[in-house]
Amino acid sequence: MSKERSVFQQFRKKTYIVIYGTNTIAGKAFDLILLGVILLSILLTMMETVKSFETKYHDIRIALEWGITIFFTIEYFLRIISINKPLKYIFSFYGIIDLIATLPMYLAQVVAGSGVLSIVRSLRLLRLFKVLNHPQFTGQSQQLKDALLASKGKILVFIYFVLISTVLIGSIMYVVEGRENGFTSIPTSIYWTIVTLTTVGYGDISPVTPLGQFLASLVMILGYGVIAVPTGIVSAELAKTDQKLALIDKNPCADCGAEGHQENAKFCHQCGNNLLDD
Amino acid sequence: MSKERSVFQQFRKKTYIVIYGTNTIAGKAFDLILLGVILLSILLTMMETVKSFETKYHDIRIALEWGITIFFTIEYFLRIISINKPLKYIFSFYGIIDLIATLPMYLAQVVAGSGVLSIVRSLRLLRLFKVLNHPQFTGQSQQLKDALLASKGKILVFIYFVLISTVLIGSIMYVVEGRENGFTSIPTSIYWTIVTLTTVGYGDISPVTPLGQFLASLVMILGYGVIAVPTGIVSAELAKTDQKLALIDKNPCADCGAEGHQENAKFCHQCGNNLLDD
Amino acid sequence: MSKERSVFQQFRKKTYIVIYGTNTIAGKAFDLILLGVILLSILLTMMETVKSFETKYHDIRIALEWGITIFFTIEYFLRIISINKPLKYIFSFYGIIDLIATLPMYLAQVVAGSGVLSIVRSLRLLRLFKVLNHPQFTGQSQQLKDALLASKGKILVFIYFVLISTVLIGSIMYVVEGRENGFTSIPTSIYWTIVTLTTVGYGDISPVTPLGQFLASLVMILGYGVIAVPTGIVSAELAKTDQKLALIDKNPCADCGAEGHQENAKFCHQCGNNLLDD
Amino acid sequence: MSKERSVFQQFRKKTYIVIYGTNTIAGKAFDLILLGVILLSILLTMMETVKSFETKYHDIRIALEWGITIFFTIEYFLRIISINKPLKYIFSFYGIIDLIATLPMYLAQVVAGSGVLSIVRSLRLLRLFKVLNHPQFTGQSQQLKDALLASKGKILVFIYFVLISTVLIGSIMYVVEGRENGFTSIPTSIYWTIVTLTTVGYGDISPVTPLGQFLASLVMILGYGVIAVPTGIVSAELAKTDQKLALIDKNPCADCGAEGHQENAKFCHQCGNNLLDD
Repeated sequence: MSKERSVFQQFRKKTYIVIYGTNTIAGKAFDLILLGVILLSILLTMMETVKSFETKYHDIRIALEWGITIFFTIEYFLRIISINKPLKYIFSFYGIIDLIATLPMYLAQVVAGSGVLSIVRSLRLLRLFKVLNHPQFTGQSQQLKDALLASKGKILVFIYFVLISTVLIGSIMYVVEGRENGFTSIPTSIYWTIVTLTTVGYGDISPVTPLGQFLASLVMILGYGVIAVPTGIVSAELAKTDQKLALIDKNPCADCGAEGHQENAKFCHQCGNNLLDD
Repeated sequence: MSKERSVFQQFRKKTYIVIYGTNTIAGKAFDLILLGVILLSILLTMMETVKSFETKYHDIRIALEWGITIFFTIEYFLRIISINKPLKYIFSFYGIIDLIATLPMYLAQVVAGSGVLSIVRSLRLLRLFKVLNHPQFTGQSQQLKDALLASKGKILVFIYFVLISTVLIGSIMYVVEGRENGFTSIPTSIYWTIVTLTTVGYGDISPVTPLGQFLASLVMILGYGVIAVPTGIVSAELAKTDQKLALIDKNPCADCGAEGHQENAKFCHQCGNNLLDD
Repeated sequence: MSKERSVFQQFRKKTYIVIYGTNTIAGKAFDLILLGVILLSILLTMMETVKSFETKYHDIRIALEWGITIFFTIEYFLRIISINKPLKYIFSFYGIIDLIATLPMYLAQVVAGSGVLSIVRSLRLLRLFKVLNHPQFTGQSQQLKDALLASKGKILVFIYFVLISTVLIGSIMYVVEGRENGFTSIPTSIYWTIVTLTTVGYGDISPVTPLGQFLASLVMILGYGVIAVPTGIVSAELAKTDQKLALIDKNPCADCGAEGHQENAKFCHQCGNNLLDD
Repeated sequence: MSKERSVFQQFRKKTYIVIYGTNTIAGKAFDLILLGVILLSILLTMMETVKSFETKYHDIRIALEWGITIFFTIEYFLRIISINKPLKYIFSFYGIIDLIATLPMYLAQVVAGSGVLSIVRSLRLLRLFKVLNHPQFTGQSQQLKDALLASKGKILVFIYFVLISTVLIGSIMYVVEGRENGFTSIPTSIYWTIVTLTTVGYGDISPVTPLGQFLASLVMILGYGVIAVPTGIVSAELAKTDQKLALIDKNPCADCGAEGHQENAKFCHQCGNNLLDD
């Protein structure tokens, strides 16, 4: 029985290396296959809604869906078995997403109504975010995340200001243009204001009266200037993290402690000490 | 009578702490309740204009409106009573906004015409700007305000230039496309130019003739390049204020306490003390 | 006769101070009146094309137009008389614009066809660019001009690249979507590409086939990324000129020659020399 | 025969200088003529699809097309003959493009179907990218290319994130709005999401239900904030390369000639020489 256990332990260990690891060939191959299966599952979810495709290939799609479901189910159990703290995994964000990824076909046997299932199925693509944790991208995505987190406060203040402006402009446009010109209620007017301020401009609602067009022009110019603000915030933040990274890369001088030496510096720019001797 | 006065004084003091303060629990609770009531009042203003909602819930809405009006009225009088310089408050920006917030239901008894009242009511949301004065946001919004104020001159020059271009392009497009293609007058053409230059693009008016489409293409490419200018201005300004803030964060001089030394400074710029000895 | 000449010389001198100067009260007043008359002339040009306005106020408009024309004519002659090198003024950019500003009403007696006259009249607004030469704006507009001139090379390369992409994408979309879906010719397809790439998106032409919508999606994401380039160029350039201006403001240390001292520095950060003693 | 060879060698040499060189007058003239012929060929490709033009000038166009084809064919053979490693040229990117540029008229004799030929013909404009290799633009385009390459990692992470969001939002909108409101399938919904997120906003599909309009508003505000990210990336990158270039411009060390010293460096970072003694 001890031997059986040791065989199981070895299986667990190997499975762990293949499923969670990214260094062995088998680990890389598994990651690629998994990525492929996820992409296929998303593609099927999309194509099901295209009528001409569905009428032709319905049976093939169902077969593939079952294949994917079985693949995800096996993978999910292997993940639980091979990891040391299975409960931590099960209740982690990606653990829940992995579980949800297995469910749609089982649920379809019980529940009717493709709308909800369609959303459940499209949650599978959240698994794709895991790719960003891959060592190759980790530095880049971390820097972006840091810059966005650092500018969070300013962006919130900005969005707060934009939302208040949106309600104010929407109310005014509702009074100016009125129901007969498509501004049927204040919420609709606010929707129009957001469409205009963000420069999307569908044209499903557009001002007709001269005064409305004049006010809309002001809103557009405002939106044009206002878009500069989040861009400026993120630019400044990214430039700052770039500078920090550039400084962190450089070692201080062993003699005088001066930092910020250039990449190819041989001598300290403050005391003339030879940096390469350190 | 002196005792009565002292009771009143104590009531004033306590009211002041609750209404104007943000440090006590009662003060924070009052701020949150006030925020909730303001948001509710704005929501009601919006929903009144949605026909399906109004026909169903008209009576409840009116009752809630009266509740809010009474709440705002009491709050307004408490603010006047509890503050030391009531006149200064009454004629301040937020004082006037607070007064306007109480008026709509009273005015509705006198004046007819929901248009004007709707705008008066939507002015209530200006009260929301007060949130930006809250200590938590004060630094962030101050930095944004500073950057926008510092770039005011450049942005005005830019808008002046854009407006002149707008009139010129509008006049040319009016002649090129003409009344029959939707460019019914020069002001309408200018409206179209702004819609195009800001990349909103409703499509309610769009060029039909080949020459008009060619000119429109030039305008779009111009607009595409031109949007870079305000963004660049704000980015550069925010990067600058970030640098200033970064300098303030640096270590103070051990001798005189002066802050804001440059990255590789060896001597304090205020007292000449050798910083590297510390 | 000598006395007469001296009177004329004095008149010339006074006129020069009023018309060209900006320091005296009369000079400032003249600038403001001129600005008002120019704005009025532009407003009239616009309103002439608004039918409901023109039918009502045609006679008043004509009267005002004659008033403006006479004002501009007198101003033009005074400018020539009072300046020392009249020929240089006459053939300068603003000299020609000033002349053109006087012409429309005279031409209207000779030429028929309001189209051309309308454009000639709208050229009057080029006079408004002169305001940017006013001392108050000169620094700001100079810095913007410098940044745009410095980034000219990069922006040209960028536009060249965008135009080539535009023709290529336009040709492909013409083949993919075809005449029946609104892409009636390659020039029209190029117009659509520019409308899409610049995110204007009128919707007068939009892809209908699945392949066309897929390609259009790629173009939009390309356009979304591509807009970053001119913005980045101008941002970087403005940040650079800001830095230069900041450094130019600071004097070097008299002792060691180090530059780049902070605004409130009292001691040189390189040698500790007292900067205020200099 | 040796003499004949030497004459041919001289012809090769001269041809090489004219076709590949940019320093002699003949070389510059050839570059300009070639640019003109390429532009003419692109113009003809465009105008062929404009019906009113084609019916009038069909014969002239065909004649010009043959002239261009013969010009490109001769040029192609001269390029092969005059260069030292013809095989390397033939299989280079521009070599293949040059070959493709000669083909359309020959192919038209064999193949029918203007669609494919139209694309082949429009590939001629890829020749225009060669202009960016011209010494005058080489620095500017190199800096842009460097900045884009350096920010490649971050931009890929960003696009990956945007694409996943696009599929998720598209699926939700498909369920919320449904087939009857134009969201006929998930791929179509994704197309709408991209149109909205990039602020293009054709208006061919737009949300109709209140919930759909509310979600669309969120997407627009998201898109508005999200556009800040690529712009910020490129701005920060360009600012960085600008700084590097600025360092290169600084004075070299008098002792060892090393360049790229920092602004307040006192000692050369390559040889330790005191820079301030110079």
